[in-house]
This record gives sequence, structure tokens and C-alpha cells, in this order.
Amino acid sequence: MTTKKYLQMLQKEIHSTAFATVDENGLPHVRIIDIMLVDDDSLYFITAKGKEFYRQIERQKFVAITGMTGGRGDSLTKKAISIRGKIKNVGQDLLDKIFELNPYMKDIYPTNTRYALEVFQVYEGQGEYFDLSSKPIYRDTFTLGGKKEVHSQYVIDKNCIGCDKCAKVCPQQCIDKLSPYSIRQENCLHCGLCLETCPSNAIKLLTI
Amino acid sequence: MTTKKYLQMLQKEIHSTAFATVDENGLPHVRIIDIMLVDDDSLYFITAKGKEFYRQIERQKFVAITGMTGGRGDSLTKKAISIRGKIKNVGQDLLDKIFELNPYMKDIYPTNTRYALEVFQVYEGQGEYFDLSSKPIYRDTFTLGGKKEVHSQYVIDKNCIGCDKCAKVCPQQCIDKLSPYSIRQENCLHCGLCLETCPSNAIKLLTI
Repeated sequence: MTTKKYLQMLQKEIHSTAFATVDENGLPHVRIIDIMLVDDDSLYFITAKGKEFYRQIERQKFVAITGMTGGRGDSLTKKAISIRGKIKNVGQDLLDKIFELNPYMKDIYPTNTRYALEVFQVYEGQGEYFDLSSKPIYRDTFTLGGKKEVHSQYVIDKNCIGCDKCAKVCPQQCIDKLSPYSIRQENCLHCGLCLETCPSNAIKLLTI
Repeated sequence: MTTKKYLQMLQKEIHSTAFATVDENGLPHVRIIDIMLVDDDSLYFITAKGKEFYRQIERQKFVAITGMTGGRGDSLTKKAISIRGKIKNVGQDLLDKIFELNPYMKDIYPTNTRYALEVFQVYEGQGEYFDLSSKPIYRDTFTLGGKKEVHSQYVIDKNCIGCDKCAKVCPQQCIDKLSPYSIRQENCLHCGLCLETCPSNAIKLLTI
């Protein structure tokens, strides 16, 4: 799927997501934030100037976001989208449009109290899609604002002796018996069992 | 509600939550993690040794968690629970019990592949409950492992001149006209409009 489709899924199907930040002590924080507006390759959210969250994002202009579609309860029935990226404060110009698109906001911030809020844009970053409801599991990556994709993956190199131990131990059965053996990246859980099991040191975790 | 009740709500009603961590560059990460088991004042989750998440929590033994109940889509219909606290790796002794309680895990990690996983306990921390579906909004705090509660709140002190400006501007109408005026903490959005509006510098954001 394209970045635009993933962003639309995030706004329309998921909408309420978790935003993670780092405080002045280097410790993580996370809270529920709604995705108010998206365009082809960026997304917008709002927060009030009086919040801890506001101070944290003004200091480190970066957030990590994750959200999932509804489901039966456990994560096995759900699809998750995660994004990490740079943000900027774009002021209050989009506030009225956002309140029109998300009328429930008028119940929380009635009349002019909406001007306690400011709008932020995630303008550059990378995203990951993770579907635990498919068998085997399915993952995909995408980018925002033309940022080059960077991600980690387990890879089998030419030291592979074809012993089949990695394929046997893989919980998702996503290792193909080629020469060398090969991991289907879109189905990999990143559990690391293959690397742990390989007797010939042929499996590496690479950041690509 | 008691800590135990909030933890049970987290495991049974919410189950799939977002866990935030900090990487070696000081940047936030977040992903969906299920709450596998709770007791009176701690909770348990699992992850695979091959994951980036595993390395981050082994380095900084601290996580921030948030999750919300299902709802119509936007956060206005939902109740959220957030917890921040210290964690420890408790090995694999609880794995079989966790797989019995959460049988869907057998589809992701069939047979013996479950031993790619280790169990972690959040044993000390503090939590917050946030209900945007009630009018006015409602918040509450609780602790895990006997940790003293620490939280921020807006407070009005004796510099209050009773001018009523803060009460007029409050989006949740949660400021009582006492002497000095007083903020009902359980209904406060932490938007900061009152502090911004006060002409007599009587409103402070305190960490208590």
C-alpha cells in the first residue's frame, strides 16, 4: 500500500493512537492522541499548551506513534500502524478545519476554548504496518516526506550451510530453502530464534 | 477504583496496549504489546529476545504504557489507562501459564518456539485513569508496588482575587468559586488556559 493509504487508515479506521515522547530525564511517556487530519505524506494532531506533552514535543521535535484497528480484544485480530518522525508546530491556522472534521472536539473544548490548542505536523519519518491477523503475519514499511527508509531485518548470508535448523525453528515458517536460505522479510516476527539457532553464524540483524 | 481493579481492566477490557521506550539515541519508540497477566499491584508482558524492544528494555528498565477501551472510533467515547514504571526480567517460569491464559499466542509462537520469549514484570510505578466519555472528563491516579504517587496539577493559591476569569475560560467548567477559587482535579484537562488567563499570577502547575 502507499503512504497515503496507510495515513488514511490511521485517520479513519484507527483515529485514536498512542504518542510516545521522552522527558527531561530521558524516560519515556505515552498517551492517547487522535489523528486529526492527513494529507499525501504527513499527518496532523493537536494538543493544549498547558500539557506536559506540549513541553516534551517542543523540546524534542520528534514523536513515535502506534495505533491499531479494532478487533476481538487481543492483538492477533488487529492491524497496527506505527510511525516515527520529525514534527513541527504549525500554529492555529488549521484548528477550525480540524474542529469541522472532528466535531466531537467541540464537546471537550467548547466555543473559544479551542484556542488553548495548537496544531502539529509530522512532516518527515518512516512507518511500519504490522498485521498479526494474517497467517503468516505480514509487515510492510513506508515513508513520510521523502525520508529514506531505514529498518532492521534478519538476513542470512553466504555462510549458510543449508542445515535447515533455522527453518525448523521459525515460528512463522517464513524461511525459504534457497542457497543460501532466505527469510521472507514481510512475514518475519523479528523473534531472533533463527539467529540463536544457526550453527554457522550465517544470520545477522542488519540495519538497512 | 483500586490499583487491582485498574489492572484487571487493563488486562481484560483493554488487553492490547502501547509500550513506549527510549533508544540509544534518546529517541522514543512505541509498539503494541498485550497485557498477559496481572496481580494485585503488578503486571506482566512478554517479548522475544531478538527484538529491538527487548534490547531497549534490558538497557533502560523502565516503560510507559497506555491503552484504551474500545469505542466508536474517536477518543471521546473511550477510557484510557496509562502506567509508567520500573520493570524486571522474570525469565520463562510464567510462560506456560501465560500461554494457557492467552491461547491465541500459540498461533504466533507454536510448539516450543515460545521459548524465544521472556516474561517481564512492571513491579513499581504509577498509573493514571482518564475518561473522556464522562462529562466533565474524569481522571484518577493509582500506584503499583507501593510507589508514592507523583503527578502534576494546576493549583490556585492565595493570590486569587476572585475575578472569575479562570472559571469563565475553563473548557470543562471545573473551577469552583471558593476563596481562593479551586480546581476540581479529577475533572481537569490540564489545558493550561486558566494559568494563561489569570491576571494575578495565582495559578501554578505543581508536581505533587
